[in-house]
Amino acid sequence: MTKAAVMGSGSWGTAFAAIMADAGTQVSLWCRRFEVAEEIAATRRNSAYLPDLVLPDLVDATNDAQEALAGAEIVVVAIPAQEVRTALAAWLPFLEEGALLVSLMKGIEQDTGLRMSQVIGQVAGVEDARLVVISGPNLAKEIAARQPAAAVVASTSPRARARVAEACAAPYFRPYLGADVIGIEIAGATKNVIGIAVGMAAGMGMGENTVASLLTRGLAETVRLGVALGADSQTFLGLAGVGDLVATCTSPLSRNRSFGFELGRGRSVQDVLATSHSTVEGVKSCRSILQLAREADVDAPIVENIVSVLYEDRDPREVLGAFMSRTRKHEI
Amino acid sequence: MTKAAVMGSGSWGTAFAAIMADAGTQVSLWCRRFEVAEEIAATRRNSAYLPDLVLPDLVDATNDAQEALAGAEIVVVAIPAQEVRTALAAWLPFLEEGALLVSLMKGIEQDTGLRMSQVIGQVAGVEDARLVVISGPNLAKEIAARQPAAAVVASTSPRARARVAEACAAPYFRPYLGADVIGIEIAGATKNVIGIAVGMAAGMGMGENTVASLLTRGLAETVRLGVALGADSQTFLGLAGVGDLVATCTSPLSRNRSFGFELGRGRSVQDVLATSHSTVEGVKSCRSILQLAREADVDAPIVENIVSVLYEDRDPREVLGAFMSRTRKHEI
Repeated sequence: MTKAAVMGSGSWGTAFAAIMADAGTQVSLWCRRFEVAEEIAATRRNSAYLPDLVLPDLVDATNDAQEALAGAEIVVVAIPAQEVRTALAAWLPFLEEGALLVSLMKGIEQDTGLRMSQVIGQVAGVEDARLVVISGPNLAKEIAARQPAAAVVASTSPRARARVAEACAAPYFRPYLGADVIGIEIAGATKNVIGIAVGMAAGMGMGENTVASLLTRGLAETVRLGVALGADSQTFLGLAGVGDLVATCTSPLSRNRSFGFELGRGRSVQDVLATSHSTVEGVKSCRSILQLAREADVDAPIVENIVSVLYEDRDPREVLGAFMSRTRKHEI
Repeated sequence: MTKAAVMGSGSWGTAFAAIMADAGTQVSLWCRRFEVAEEIAATRRNSAYLPDLVLPDLVDATNDAQEALAGAEIVVVAIPAQEVRTALAAWLPFLEEGALLVSLMKGIEQDTGLRMSQVIGQVAGVEDARLVVISGPNLAKEIAARQPAAAVVASTSPRARARVAEACAAPYFRPYLGADVIGIEIAGATKNVIGIAVGMAAGMGMGENTVASLLTRGLAETVRLGVALGADSQTFLGLAGVGDLVATCTSPLSRNRSFGFELGRGRSVQDVLATSHSTVEGVKSCRSILQLAREADVDAPIVENIVSVLYEDRDPREVLGAFMSRTRKHEI
């Protein structure tokens, strides 16, 4: 039986631990807080994040990273994007030789502008063939309810992606194989920012036409950036591209969309962040994404406008007008 | 001042007449039923379709096709897809020399498998340079409320698309120019069928992950078909592709989605169609699309499954299982 460690017990880490266990993988779920590990051991539940999910018996929870990582052939990292560098450095002594490192994060590191798999590769000092990323339309609450879902499991190594896909192929969770790590990570990071923009528009009372137009222009922006950075444009038509973007932009369960929605309704950035339970990755990553776009000389108006709302005090209403009135005669 | 005729006073034709008038175009709106023309003349409203829209003064309504077409430099056709051949044949004697013919339809002709601009070109005997198609995420009710929206105005003729775009550039409606008529018409026709599939899944209680996955696989299916027929794959990333698909698949206002939703809840095809006020284009076009796919040797599992539910009495529940369990290891 494959043994995996899932490092991080937020909603996606917890749901992914359940997926792996339902796929027949032995999972050690590392919880940063002792009380969460204790609650899972006692009740099989992580009530703060996914109160309705009863974790399968194949999931063991622990607060001890060394214990979690012991014997793990697959190490799944599921913590806030900006904490990966520090956390992984602390785990390094306990990583098994040859273990595959899997990123569930959707973000870009601040300051360095690195994608998550780049951060992991750099800190752990491993080659690309041991790095895997997973992305798709995967709202944790629906996965926890075992509704059918699919995702892309991508790595430059065919063997690595096949092993990880096998370890998470549950009856309700279908992994597809992919090779375009760059495209998948750029799509995953950028969709959070587009989700904030779409949420803002919805919060201002805009309807489906506006939302769909904004989503489409956000996708075009993402493709331009991804392709400039070496991605395959086809990736953006897939589950980790359009699929994840649609789930983020249309679901009230999406954190980034909800965050934008509150801004659109007129609340201040500080106020909404103060009452937010989970990390809003788009807020953390948008400046790094804008920086990547500038370095690649790519026009990224939606990301730019969201940065100006979040960090330069610009009025969301003014920004929405800008989205809809830019003069661009040819669409593509 | 440009003079246009909008032939058809359903919800999209009526909303588009308002757009053109708001863009400064003189519009003659042809209504098949005398009472509708009369109501618009008396009250400026088309209460059966868009009760909240007050039509601008630049719109004149008439039941007389000859009167509507007199002097029209732009003729916009907005009737059910399967009626275009017969209706246009009757209008031919009244068409002005050199008038541009614009299709707002999203469907494929039954029996012939022709796209709408092909039907128009064939019946009117005009070259491609006089044919224009318009498509995008344009729910008529939101347009009627003058919410910001955008669409692609496409023609092989740069002059034709520029003239039509000019004639419909209203403050809240932004036309983009495009050249890929094939891609836009295939995207427009197929999205109705994908909308039915997504509605079915939603009607069965599936959440956003499933909907987003189904939409993504529907898009992949559409791209395959479009490219096989000569379209540019980039078109499907744009407003007439992803944009329109998202609006159709996520809005409760979409007819095709609503139709699928009722099937998903367990109602019969006959029962839902009997109570449907408007044409559900996906029901009419799905067999022609499947035929096109077969002739082009393209795999179109979602369209195929919808045809089997609508015309071969297959159970929607069985079909949804098939969507989610097909074994395809590589995504693209």
